[in-house]
Amino acid sequence: MIICKTKSEIQGALAKRRQAGETIAAVPTMGALHEGHLSLIDVANEISDQVVATIFVNPLQFGANEDFGTYPRTVESDLELLKARGCNFAFTPDRNDLFPADFSTKISVAGVGEDHCALSRPQFFDGVATIVTKLLMILSPDVAVFGEKDYQQLAVIKRLVRDLDIATEIVGAPTVRESDGLAMSSRNQYLSVEERNVAPALYKALTAAAEKLHSADHNWSEIRDASIEQLLGAGFSSVDYLHFVDAFSLAHIEKVDRPGRLLAAAWIGKTRLIDNVPVEAA
Amino acid sequence: MIICKTKSEIQGALAKRRQAGETIAAVPTMGALHEGHLSLIDVANEISDQVVATIFVNPLQFGANEDFGTYPRTVESDLELLKARGCNFAFTPDRNDLFPADFSTKISVAGVGEDHCALSRPQFFDGVATIVTKLLMILSPDVAVFGEKDYQQLAVIKRLVRDLDIATEIVGAPTVRESDGLAMSSRNQYLSVEERNVAPALYKALTAAAEKLHSADHNWSEIRDASIEQLLGAGFSSVDYLHFVDAFSLAHIEKVDRPGRLLAAAWIGKTRLIDNVPVEAA
Repeated sequence: MIICKTKSEIQGALAKRRQAGETIAAVPTMGALHEGHLSLIDVANEISDQVVATIFVNPLQFGANEDFGTYPRTVESDLELLKARGCNFAFTPDRNDLFPADFSTKISVAGVGEDHCALSRPQFFDGVATIVTKLLMILSPDVAVFGEKDYQQLAVIKRLVRDLDIATEIVGAPTVRESDGLAMSSRNQYLSVEERNVAPALYKALTAAAEKLHSADHNWSEIRDASIEQLLGAGFSSVDYLHFVDAFSLAHIEKVDRPGRLLAAAWIGKTRLIDNVPVEAA
Repeated sequence: MIICKTKSEIQGALAKRRQAGETIAAVPTMGALHEGHLSLIDVANEISDQVVATIFVNPLQFGANEDFGTYPRTVESDLELLKARGCNFAFTPDRNDLFPADFSTKISVAGVGEDHCALSRPQFFDGVATIVTKLLMILSPDVAVFGEKDYQQLAVIKRLVRDLDIATEIVGAPTVRESDGLAMSSRNQYLSVEERNVAPALYKALTAAAEKLHSADHNWSEIRDASIEQLLGAGFSSVDYLHFVDAFSLAHIEKVDRPGRLLAAAWIGKTRLIDNVPVEAA
C-alpha cells in the first residue's frame, strides 16, 4: 500500500494507474477504522481495480461544542488495517494542505441536507459536502463508497454529485453491525460498559418500528412515540429525532406507499449515536 | 464548429480530443456575444488546442427583480460569431438538462464573494459559483477563460477553483472597450442613444480616480466622493458603489501599498453598468 501525505503525491500515484487503464475507487474516512469502514474497502475492491482510502478528520463538519479535539485518531493502526484489507493507496493529508488560511468556499445541499441530523448539527452537512467535493476533485475516482450507516450523509453526497455533475459514481454499502445489532461506529468507543449494554436498543427500536409500519391500520405518530418511550426505557438519555422518511428525498412520510427509511439519533450520556433501517414499500 | 445541446454529446465530443492528447479551453458565456467575449475565444485559442464556448443564461444568478426574462438571447448569431472566430465546440444546454426539478446544491464563496456587487445582488455570486462549477465538471477543461470586466466574478471563480481543488486553470483576460472607453457588455444594448452618451463617464471616472491615487497626499474618501459627484454630474442616475480594494482579496484599502483595483457599479436609468481598473502599487 502506497501512503501519500500531499495532494500532488496522491495525484501522481493515481495518474499512473489511470494511464494504465485501471479504474479507481475512493473510500473517504475520518480514520478510527472499524469493520464498517473495512467492509467499504471490500466493496471498493470488488468494483474497481485500485482502491484509495483517505484518512482526514475534517474540521469543517464539527460544531464548536462537538468532539473534533477528542475524535479518536489512530492513523498508524488504521494504515495497518487498510493494508491488510487490500487497500492500494492511503491519502492522509495535512489540514494545511487542504485548507489554506483564506479558504472560503462552502457547498450547501438544501432539502436532503436539512432536517434530521442537521437539526442539531447545522454545519455538519455543509462540512461533509465541501470536504467530499474536494476529495473527489483531488482523487478523480470512478466510484466512491460510503456507508449507509450515515444515511443522510450518503443522500447529501449523492445529491451534490448529481447536482454538480461530478464524474464519480457514489455507491452506498450496508451498515455493519456488532452481533447484538449495534451499528459499528468510531464513536462507540466513547461508551462505558454500562452504556454499551444500552446501545443495541437503538437498532432494536428501529427494526420493531419498521415492522409495525407494515401492520394494518398502523399510525406513524403512535409508533414513533412508543419507540421513543422504548429507547428512554432501555436507558437512552434523550432522543434527538426518530423520523420516517422517503428513502430518496428524505421528506417526512407516514405511509409505506414507497421505499422509506427510519432515521434516528439518540444520546447515551455524552455520546450521540445514529442508526437507520429500510422500510420497504408495502 | 460542433454544436452540442446535451451534456453527454459535449462530453463525448471532448473525450475524443482529449484522447488525441489535445488540451481544451472553456469560455463560459451567457450569449449575446460581443467583441469582449470573442477576445476570450482568441485567448483560449492561443493557450489550448481546442476551444469550447458555452452559451447558457443561468437562472441561478438573477434576482427576482432582475432581467432574467429580458436578458438578450441571440443564439443563432452567437453561434455564427463563435464559428467565424475559430471556436471548435459550442455547448448550448437546456435548462432542464442542467437543473433537474429537485436540484438543491449551492456553492458560496465568503470574503471575495461578499461586498461590492454582492451588496445589491445577494444571490449573484452563489449562482455564478454553482453554474461555473457545473460547467467545469461537465467539460473538464484544462483552462477556462473569463473577462476581467467582471472582476469580482473572476476573483470568486479563482477562489472556488483553488478551494475545491478543481483541476482547471482559471485565466483572466483584459476588458475590451469601445473607442470611447465604455467596457463592452451585453447590457449596453439596453441603453438609449442619450444614455449611451453618458456611459463612458464610468471608465473616465475610474481612470481619473486611479491617477489621483498616485498623487502625493491622496485621500481615498475624498477621491471617491469626487468621483461619485463626477458620475452623477455626467448623467448617471445613481452609484451602487465605488470601492478601492486589494486586487486579490478584494478587501477595502486606502493606500497604494500593494496591487489594487477600483471597482464600480452605477445606474443609467434602468441599466446597471459595472467596470473596474487596476491601481498599480506605488
